[in-house]
Amino acid sequence: MNFNEEYRKRTEYVESVLKKYLPEKEGLQKIIMEAMEYSLMAGGKRLRPILMLESYRMFGGEGRVIEPFMAAIEMIHTYSLVHDDLPAMDNDDYRRGRRTTHVVYGEDMGILAGDALLNYAFETACRAFDLEEADPRLIGRALQILAGKAGIYGMIGGQVVDVKESGHQIGGEVLDFIYRLKTGALLEASVMTGAVLAGADGEQIAAMEKIAAKTGMAFQIQDDILDVTGSEEVLGKPVHSDEKNEKTTFVTWKGLEESGREVSRLTEEAIAGLSGLGKQDDFLRELLRWLVYREK
Amino acid sequence: MNFNEEYRKRTEYVESVLKKYLPEKEGLQKIIMEAMEYSLMAGGKRLRPILMLESYRMFGGEGRVIEPFMAAIEMIHTYSLVHDDLPAMDNDDYRRGRRTTHVVYGEDMGILAGDALLNYAFETACRAFDLEEADPRLIGRALQILAGKAGIYGMIGGQVVDVKESGHQIGGEVLDFIYRLKTGALLEASVMTGAVLAGADGEQIAAMEKIAAKTGMAFQIQDDILDVTGSEEVLGKPVHSDEKNEKTTFVTWKGLEESGREVSRLTEEAIAGLSGLGKQDDFLRELLRWLVYREK
Repeated sequence: MNFNEEYRKRTEYVESVLKKYLPEKEGLQKIIMEAMEYSLMAGGKRLRPILMLESYRMFGGEGRVIEPFMAAIEMIHTYSLVHDDLPAMDNDDYRRGRRTTHVVYGEDMGILAGDALLNYAFETACRAFDLEEADPRLIGRALQILAGKAGIYGMIGGQVVDVKESGHQIGGEVLDFIYRLKTGALLEASVMTGAVLAGADGEQIAAMEKIAAKTGMAFQIQDDILDVTGSEEVLGKPVHSDEKNEKTTFVTWKGLEESGREVSRLTEEAIAGLSGLGKQDDFLRELLRWLVYREK
Repeated sequence: MNFNEEYRKRTEYVESVLKKYLPEKEGLQKIIMEAMEYSLMAGGKRLRPILMLESYRMFGGEGRVIEPFMAAIEMIHTYSLVHDDLPAMDNDDYRRGRRTTHVVYGEDMGILAGDALLNYAFETACRAFDLEEADPRLIGRALQILAGKAGIYGMIGGQVVDVKESGHQIGGEVLDFIYRLKTGALLEASVMTGAVLAGADGEQIAAMEKIAAKTGMAFQIQDDILDVTGSEEVLGKPVHSDEKNEKTTFVTWKGLEESGREVSRLTEEAIAGLSGLGKQDDFLRELLRWLVYREK
């Protein structure tokens, strides 16, 4: 299997799904559709919809019901970035080498574009009910997971603690909480909704949640590592930002070497969990490994 | 019927539903639960959940499935106020006589509390799927309406144009657009979801949408009137704010007298629409009238 080629194919599919579900740029409120498209189509790894799709396929899913959910999770991820970048939050002017949404459209539209993306995510996911193939109970369950993992017990909860503790010395427990929720929760939502919509059973869904939790932790620690060892050209964002912001990260806590070992350990555990499911998914396995060796 | 007594009873019921669905204040992210409760339990007319409940009952609904939706629409309404009040938006320090959420919890938590309320609204509405009595297809349809009316083709769309045109001279068409979407859309969502969940048919749902649209317009024009004729003590917020912000309103556009006539006309049309449905709902009829004569 040529992993890069397979990844590229999936990215293209995700982009086509996003375009399909993006609102037309029209009406007096056209500027908000433009701001949504600007932030949503700014590139990125599309990791969450790709994970969702792989999980769906792994459990035998073959329909289109996954598509609105793929678009929805990327919209949720994107809104969180748009709001994170706001002046009252991280105050970032650049992301992925481009000016951030509030810099281009103004702070008020930055707030509204984030709100719009979050709301539109649910609007989009709910379009799954219009697909004849789909079981409304499974869609309901997938929506519950999506909303739960994105909210105060998931991504927002992690972001709240991250913001609250910013500039403070924090311990490993708090760091773990932030990583688990801020990064992990949406990855968990991705694989869980994919599994649910494909009709996986409770045990399988719980196993996928664990795999994604480990992957999310590894992914976030790898981010910390890249902030120290990476270059601005490759990452498309400033490096050493954690040091500048005096942020406690896994790397400042445990050091580079131990952090690298933790990433490997978590990844191998996630892959072992995947093997335990007895399903064929070479791409997903490679994807989890790639997250360790990525340079951006 | 003693309208005030009936209204009070319904408000109490709404408050009990809100409390039931509010998250526990616990965990490292506890501050966000506090900010959510602070904004959500700040009083207010609870008009949207009351309208939803009345519509549900009018079409024969008797179950509990309406409750998560009642909580959800009030959460959506509240998040929109929290974000509207932010420094980058209307920059209001007071609302309903209390300090606004971002003033109490900081601007970053103000943004996050709004996000959290919007997300939690969908999380809450999705709990309807757990109720055994409920038809998942109807819940799906109600969710679609709720998300649609709250988003870029509804409330957010109206807010975007309101913000974009702030300080500009605008015409009646733009004003109509803003009122219809910013205020009207959530009222439409209220009565429509109530009707859907009670099993009303398409024609009835469309009729309720029209009634709410007229009510929303009347309600917003009445707000403009009160900004000119009301007192700060009664309203619990500064008056003459539209004049200060050089805002075009229905009153600055058409004058007080014509605005008053428009409120009456719209209200009578809404009430006539209600009568046309051939259902018994004295309270809803009185409620629509009260919206005209209210002083806050």
